[in-house]
Amino acid sequence: MDGSLTVGTSAIEGVWLEPLKQIEDERGAVLHMLRSDAPYFTRFGEVYFSVVLPQAVKAWKRHHRMTQHFAVPVGKIKVVVFDDRPGSASHGLMEKFILGRPDHYYLLRLPPLVWYGFQGLGPEPALLANCADLPHDPNEVETLPDPTPYVPFKWEEDHG
Amino acid sequence: MDGSLTVGTSAIEGVWLEPLKQIEDERGAVLHMLRSDAPYFTRFGEVYFSVVLPQAVKAWKRHHRMTQHFAVPVGKIKVVVFDDRPGSASHGLMEKFILGRPDHYYLLRLPPLVWYGFQGLGPEPALLANCADLPHDPNEVETLPDPTPYVPFKWEEDHG
Repeated sequence: MDGSLTVGTSAIEGVWLEPLKQIEDERGAVLHMLRSDAPYFTRFGEVYFSVVLPQAVKAWKRHHRMTQHFAVPVGKIKVVVFDDRPGSASHGLMEKFILGRPDHYYLLRLPPLVWYGFQGLGPEPALLANCADLPHDPNEVETLPDPTPYVPFKWEEDHG
Repeated sequence: MDGSLTVGTSAIEGVWLEPLKQIEDERGAVLHMLRSDAPYFTRFGEVYFSVVLPQAVKAWKRHHRMTQHFAVPVGKIKVVVFDDRPGSASHGLMEKFILGRPDHYYLLRLPPLVWYGFQGLGPEPALLANCADLPHDPNEVETLPDPTPYVPFKWEEDHG
């Protein structure tokens, strides 16, 4: 588990990190997220936001069919991903990502079927933007309470 | 010019306002923006953000082909739209929209060829999200300085 991953790599199969452009401007920066002509773009399903209050945890979820793209234009968030997909080359692996400006303004892609959760870091509410390849469909989402024996991660014991 | 428009209506042809869902949660709200199965969705080109510092003005621009969808999940913004499209039923009209949570969390759709600009309101930096039907292409954007004789609006004289 390492928040300072080499950009573009992840040990978990299908998880993927891309640096995003921040165009500085004295009136306020322009922040890229996702374009239809990016080589990794597939299709558009929905874009929405999740506000994450300081220290608040939103966990655990997995999607059966949806691929998600996360970016954090405001504040800072810790995202934890756990792979218990049968047959995955990275089965059993857990990874942690820090997302937020200016040093961790990345696009984080999560494939279907990995468990994930996130926590607000820092003193201000953070904003997670998600551009997903399907519109929200409650029939393809699974949730677990936090903590759960199925995901070996304790937010309160992780200070990295 | 009226910041408290009737939702869903605009006097400017092709400009359009839709209330967006805010799902309250003690850990932080979930905020809708745009879904591919919305009746008014056409196609996805790009999603990006513009930070707008307090009182800062980003103006004026128009796109020749792009339709834009704005939402403001953080802070508050004033958007001014001016129609000088020849042949438009609303030619010469100017409108002002206030966007921001919780009372003005709307999707604002701007068609091609209207002039627009926006200003940050309130004490905190605001975040404008734009989900457009084309990826950014400098060849289809026109800009004018602010102020300009072509757009009869003075930010410093408008306190509505």
